[in-house]
Amino acid sequence: MICNNLSVNAEGHLCLAGVDTVRLAQTYGTPLYVMDEDRIRERCRTYRSAMRDAFGPDALPLYAGKAAAFRQIYRVMREEGMGIDVVSPGEIYAAASVGFPMGRAYFHGNNKTDADIAYALDRRVGCFVVDNREELETLNRMAGERGIRQKILLRLTPGIDPHTYDAVATGKVDSKFGAAIETGQAGELTALALSLPHVSLAGFHCHVGSQVFDSDVYLRACAIMLNFAAEMKAAHGYVTGELDLGGGYGVRYLESDPEIDIAANIRQVGQALRAQCASLGLPVPAVRMEPGRSIVADAGLTLYTVGTFKQIPGYKNYVSVDGGMTDNPRFALYRSPYTVCIANRMREPAALRASVVGRCCESGDILQEDVPVPGTVARGDIAAVLTTGAYNYAMSSTYNRIPRPAMVLLRGGEPTLAVRRETYADLCRNEL
Amino acid sequence: MICNNLSVNAEGHLCLAGVDTVRLAQTYGTPLYVMDEDRIRERCRTYRSAMRDAFGPDALPLYAGKAAAFRQIYRVMREEGMGIDVVSPGEIYAAASVGFPMGRAYFHGNNKTDADIAYALDRRVGCFVVDNREELETLNRMAGERGIRQKILLRLTPGIDPHTYDAVATGKVDSKFGAAIETGQAGELTALALSLPHVSLAGFHCHVGSQVFDSDVYLRACAIMLNFAAEMKAAHGYVTGELDLGGGYGVRYLESDPEIDIAANIRQVGQALRAQCASLGLPVPAVRMEPGRSIVADAGLTLYTVGTFKQIPGYKNYVSVDGGMTDNPRFALYRSPYTVCIANRMREPAALRASVVGRCCESGDILQEDVPVPGTVARGDIAAVLTTGAYNYAMSSTYNRIPRPAMVLLRGGEPTLAVRRETYADLCRNEL
Repeated sequence: MICNNLSVNAEGHLCLAGVDTVRLAQTYGTPLYVMDEDRIRERCRTYRSAMRDAFGPDALPLYAGKAAAFRQIYRVMREEGMGIDVVSPGEIYAAASVGFPMGRAYFHGNNKTDADIAYALDRRVGCFVVDNREELETLNRMAGERGIRQKILLRLTPGIDPHTYDAVATGKVDSKFGAAIETGQAGELTALALSLPHVSLAGFHCHVGSQVFDSDVYLRACAIMLNFAAEMKAAHGYVTGELDLGGGYGVRYLESDPEIDIAANIRQVGQALRAQCASLGLPVPAVRMEPGRSIVADAGLTLYTVGTFKQIPGYKNYVSVDGGMTDNPRFALYRSPYTVCIANRMREPAALRASVVGRCCESGDILQEDVPVPGTVARGDIAAVLTTGAYNYAMSSTYNRIPRPAMVLLRGGEPTLAVRRETYADLCRNEL
Repeated sequence: MICNNLSVNAEGHLCLAGVDTVRLAQTYGTPLYVMDEDRIRERCRTYRSAMRDAFGPDALPLYAGKAAAFRQIYRVMREEGMGIDVVSPGEIYAAASVGFPMGRAYFHGNNKTDADIAYALDRRVGCFVVDNREELETLNRMAGERGIRQKILLRLTPGIDPHTYDAVATGKVDSKFGAAIETGQAGELTALALSLPHVSLAGFHCHVGSQVFDSDVYLRACAIMLNFAAEMKAAHGYVTGELDLGGGYGVRYLESDPEIDIAANIRQVGQALRAQCASLGLPVPAVRMEPGRSIVADAGLTLYTVGTFKQIPGYKNYVSVDGGMTDNPRFALYRSPYTVCIANRMREPAALRASVVGRCCESGDILQEDVPVPGTVARGDIAAVLTTGAYNYAMSSTYNRIPRPAMVLLRGGEPTLAVRRETYADLCRNEL
């Protein structure tokens, strides 16, 4: 199987973390998000210990909640001693609601409104990752009004194209995010930050992309960022205390995707960083990384009920399920690959290929194309889309007025409800 | 301006239906959906009268709520005497909640679950547009259990590629929707429907696509569907009572898009349909069309506050706004064109070009590229994206935990709130 938390039981049913997914579908209904909490915790521990070993005791992984932000995951992150990367007051609200210590929260975003800045200051968010001049000046003013000095990092673009899909490549100079080192704008923003009384510049941030399979981009980012840190030391006598390398390592969506040894990769980055700091005469900064997808993606899968199996002779076959682009828009957005199986027919040979499509009245509502399926697939079967822990619940919509699915967490083999299924009344709640 | 409900007032502010949009942004906050209710009503009347004139007194346009489904729009549709096309229990719930007469509702969908079918039967939805054999058999059984005979249409694919964007082209044989005439499956489904005791076959449905600028595809669809009706008459003695041609005519997103004369186009379809019925010896059926986008798209616009104007020398310029792919995912999904302007600087010349981007931590969060903007654009300005009445509120998400915008309806120059802004607490409501 694509991930070692998946198995098939004696009934030929797909299991996640040892739990029969067909039974989960019967108990909780479909569509259903299922998340393996034990796997999430294991990933947090991998990052924490690998980063401590590679970068020293001050290193801290920040869970990038945009991959999957809901109250219970912030509880897990609190219990695992993780930091978090938040991108909106909505995420701050959810994290704070379960007692997450907001001093370990880093507030991101290319466009923080005045209201956002006030909200985050008032919730004592530990660090702002400042994106641009307007934000920096507004933050300085609002922090001053509150009589505080706010810790910040500056978001810089190191000019690296990680060769991942365009929409998840954000370290390039041509980006809506941050200030470019290449154009001199990063230096100008640093000088401005150092001149302002109500912000305290802790260091720099960069994000070279998502779903990265090659540590090489981190090594290149480190090199560029540390050279910039050395320049700022020369220009302003400023010593970089923190370096945030963003996130994150790739995850396997298909059997053909490589498996990443996260600890080994981080070790390699650590060695390069220490060597370069030594050669530039810089102290080793407190390193941050921002794994999101690689913490949660393969902890999750989505269960659906099959409604119809349509064979169009001479054309294509279609398996329609009771969810789709509303709970997982990633194929519609990026043509993202996913592994799909029929959870109650895991021992049956795949006799046909079919497009697995959703229930929306939209032709683009496709979960995956060209999926091998047993010829017996029929209304009432349970389809499972694997590796949906990241950017599914988070990106879900209610298009076609389809309520968002429930979510179940599995811990020690026990399912507990983490998110209730949305109701029709919920969909109208704000409509007058 | 792109639509005649837009104007610029003495202050140089953009107005919709005569109402100053900058003032609306100040009053209701941003992002804000604004809809011109008078324009929506005008479009309903255009379709109703054009269809009566072209097809006879039994013709009825069905508003395709998937374009924009919310309680108040169903009130408008009720008051305008429209039928509706619903695609889920969520839409049925919203329409029923404002007293829409459900006998004028047509229930669509390629994958209606058992629960959906029960829900729609119990709400006395007038007509099921049956997509496939599994649905037909389930519906027959459930209607039987309730002692009723349910009116249905059968959804057929006439095999027309309307040459619009692939994801909105649904009349092709290779489609997740309906049964293909070409393969003989449409005929088989018809025979099955005629054999079942608890469904009453009223006629046939096809949908040749969305955003169609050329009446030619309707003429071709009519020809194929009426030929099929004639075949069914010959084979089973069955007389088609209703013919649903789907929707809908294209709308203008850009100045360069053509303007459609809806009434003239419908008249042309009516002439062809009557002529063909006469030559095939068929009575003229009661015609349905399903306009969604063309009813609401140019009634709407979205207002945003600008957060930062980033000029990257040698690369590109970026205007960041306080919404984005969460309230309008159409550029991210389809690279849809939109006209964007700075609502408080309508008299200033466009000096630069910029990408207008959203606030999500995602590079693909773009509303539009290469937009002409004044060189003075700055934090606090109000940006307006035009023609957002369709598939914006309906497709919105809360990605990055960004609350969904409020919506204001304009009627006779008076704004009233139709949808309240989502709160942070709303986002956590179902999270345990």
